[in-house]
Amino acid sequence: MDISGPKPELLDRFAAIVGENHVLRDASDLAPHLVEGRGLYKGSSPMLLKPCSVEEVSAILKLASETGTPIVPQTGNTGLVGGQTPRTGGSDLIVSLERMNRIRDVDPVANVLVADGGAILADVQKAAEAVDRLFPLSLGSEGSCRIGGNLSTNAGGTAVLAYGNTRQLCLGLEVVLPTGEIWDGLRRLKKDNTGYDLRDLFIGAEGTLGIITGAVLKLFPQPVGHQVALAGLNSPADALKLFERASNLCGTALTGFELMPRIGIEFVVRHIEGVRDPLSEPHPWYALIDISTSDSAETASSMVQSLLEQGFEAGLIRDAVIASSVAQQKALWHMRESMSDAQKPEGGSIKHDVSVPVSKIPTFMAEAEQAVLAAMPGARVCAFGHLGDGNIHYNISQPINADMAGDKAAFIGRWREINAIVHGIVLAAGGSISAEHGIGQLKRDELAHIRSPIEMDLMRRIKQAFDPAGIMNPGKVVAIP
Amino acid sequence: MDISGPKPELLDRFAAIVGENHVLRDASDLAPHLVEGRGLYKGSSPMLLKPCSVEEVSAILKLASETGTPIVPQTGNTGLVGGQTPRTGGSDLIVSLERMNRIRDVDPVANVLVADGGAILADVQKAAEAVDRLFPLSLGSEGSCRIGGNLSTNAGGTAVLAYGNTRQLCLGLEVVLPTGEIWDGLRRLKKDNTGYDLRDLFIGAEGTLGIITGAVLKLFPQPVGHQVALAGLNSPADALKLFERASNLCGTALTGFELMPRIGIEFVVRHIEGVRDPLSEPHPWYALIDISTSDSAETASSMVQSLLEQGFEAGLIRDAVIASSVAQQKALWHMRESMSDAQKPEGGSIKHDVSVPVSKIPTFMAEAEQAVLAAMPGARVCAFGHLGDGNIHYNISQPINADMAGDKAAFIGRWREINAIVHGIVLAAGGSISAEHGIGQLKRDELAHIRSPIEMDLMRRIKQAFDPAGIMNPGKVVAIP
Repeated sequence: MDISGPKPELLDRFAAIVGENHVLRDASDLAPHLVEGRGLYKGSSPMLLKPCSVEEVSAILKLASETGTPIVPQTGNTGLVGGQTPRTGGSDLIVSLERMNRIRDVDPVANVLVADGGAILADVQKAAEAVDRLFPLSLGSEGSCRIGGNLSTNAGGTAVLAYGNTRQLCLGLEVVLPTGEIWDGLRRLKKDNTGYDLRDLFIGAEGTLGIITGAVLKLFPQPVGHQVALAGLNSPADALKLFERASNLCGTALTGFELMPRIGIEFVVRHIEGVRDPLSEPHPWYALIDISTSDSAETASSMVQSLLEQGFEAGLIRDAVIASSVAQQKALWHMRESMSDAQKPEGGSIKHDVSVPVSKIPTFMAEAEQAVLAAMPGARVCAFGHLGDGNIHYNISQPINADMAGDKAAFIGRWREINAIVHGIVLAAGGSISAEHGIGQLKRDELAHIRSPIEMDLMRRIKQAFDPAGIMNPGKVVAIP
Repeated sequence: MDISGPKPELLDRFAAIVGENHVLRDASDLAPHLVEGRGLYKGSSPMLLKPCSVEEVSAILKLASETGTPIVPQTGNTGLVGGQTPRTGGSDLIVSLERMNRIRDVDPVANVLVADGGAILADVQKAAEAVDRLFPLSLGSEGSCRIGGNLSTNAGGTAVLAYGNTRQLCLGLEVVLPTGEIWDGLRRLKKDNTGYDLRDLFIGAEGTLGIITGAVLKLFPQPVGHQVALAGLNSPADALKLFERASNLCGTALTGFELMPRIGIEFVVRHIEGVRDPLSEPHPWYALIDISTSDSAETASSMVQSLLEQGFEAGLIRDAVIASSVAQQKALWHMRESMSDAQKPEGGSIKHDVSVPVSKIPTFMAEAEQAVLAAMPGARVCAFGHLGDGNIHYNISQPINADMAGDKAAFIGRWREINAIVHGIVLAAGGSISAEHGIGQLKRDELAHIRSPIEMDLMRRIKQAFDPAGIMNPGKVVAIP
């Protein structure tokens, strides 16, 4: 890494591509772009560029490749693994797509929407709704995250169970390669077997193989029926059994099955304004069940009734409530979506974004809790997430002590140690250490440790084939010697 | 291409890896492996090897890379673009996976099945049924095609509308790389964002980047309700309108929507034993509609009733029949699936496997017919296929003449000329020249012509990064200088 950074003359050449009005150079202007949400990474950069077209992005990357200038692409800056953050002590130039935020086209007959890489997710959702269609990608940061980032990280979210990850929601891409060449892969086809799957190589590459400047996204019919229920349960094992029944009963109409622990509900009730416990008694675990049907509202209604009846009869459900209005549905989802935020007032939180085969969720939960408590007595495990996808946000709040603030740094200092414990159990179960957040900087070294040498070598060969100058988001995902 | 071929000593070294009992060397034994179903390609090869394990495949490819010996992988030999056929006049060794045909594991709770690359598709379907699950991939050759080939060609088939291509049905792969290294990517996870998407790069690469020796496949709940209907229509435009209604009404319960022309029905009734026209009067076009529901049989029944009612009321349907038994359902599907075979007694057939955005199907059909008839008066267009996927098998039977046999060669001789006409219209509509069959040898040169230089260059970079010795299925998909 050249820590001296680009010369002023070179910076001016970059600035000239987008015009000085669309460049940030002052430390105070740059500051919000140098940190990510959790405060785990703080980078440095001499300049942020805001191109307004694929041609400007192309010119930037061409100059960067010619001059060996490292580039970090940034969209909504909501990533959770430091993938969008410039390197600490480095001089990466930031390329922000915030001005490339258009919806280029919406075709409700073909069920496709074409958007700029910098289009905000919520704007894409709204554009789909405007033509009576659904773009199902939905996550906490949807008001600020942008499609190029969602694609580059293959974002997950709350609708994966029925609709898949972002990867499954994309038909085509426009990508500027590290050399500045433009790949126009903006295809709108459901079926196209013509050569290697370049699209899926760029999706999830976290901006290390190029910058996604445009995408063709899939739209779906708006559901007609929608039901949301919350069930109190005894254990993750019962939650899994209930999930199996739900899956058999509802098929693809099962659009969400989220698992939450009692402590998570307590955190949310305690710290999130306006939230109250929807059930009269506390329960060890909770399942949030979301059902959407396309034929009629009655189908969703009868499905949720049947499922809860089956669950009660089988002794799987202790108590349950069905949301009786859209407001109540939103309130139940709000509890789930606030669970991360609700942990903040409880002190430090060591986080994991893991997945295991769904049938192994109960064993994983038991083994991980035992191991974590053995290493850190008093730690408060707040493990919740997308049970139906096998994806658990295995978060651990610090033990309760007199001096919460003073102990936070010491607690967070054990992040990697605790990660190693939890990830060891995940890997033994054939799981993933990053189910939906990606690798970025946070898990780069760990990835190289857990993957076979041949797999890492294949990734390096691809990286070098696509980015021979090594300028695209260096230091992320895969290290090039 | 070294047409002298490998020396006998080298062939013996290859044979020693699998044992002489598992080698074919005689011309008569080799013959069925040197041609593909349509008879468009006939290759040559001195030897076919039948490894029984991933280690044997690894040893073969290691020796091949070290000695520069070209290898063509072959599974069911049912491909339609010459991808599995050794090169004409060449000396490629054939590696057949027919002995690697095991179902390794079935887990109905996690909804996964692990199979060898040589497992026959029908055996995979049966293994899923045995645990009350569905493996939805379904195509005409399912009794002989094998999973490794289905994955390598990203096979489509009749269930794509609801379940996606083979790509969407795979969670993980085991691949032997051209160097003989083994990539163990047999993951069972729905969510796993850990580095570049190698899986999807091997899927659809038609055996040019390695040999798929194992796969983790997704299973689904068996549908509870199933309805099949055939509707007589006036035009592809009406078929599209009916498809839109079906899609809105049924959502993901719409598991098939196939378009067929009158001439196709006539061919099938004339040439396929036991088939009779299910409707009392002829109609210009037909839609085969398949609905599967997971909640109850009644849902499917009410969906198909509502759809046909809507279609009649809107003037989209001329006449229709709902299959009243499983046997009738199979009979309706048999008509559709026999349409290719039924063309054979009608003389030569020039074929296309194209897709366009679904909203452009009617325009495409009209423009293509006009252009084909202008170039070849009297040609009989028999265009049918997966309307819901935008995928049409645009087949053209030769004109009726006194001397059908004599004219067949001349007719087939115009294959590339007619391809160019149809593909020109497809490409102008943003379509694909190979929706589900792949590139192989048949469309390799055309691919290089229609794709941008940068896209071809990216594919070549990947090919060279993965197969530096250039031994894996050379001459297919992408030509390396």
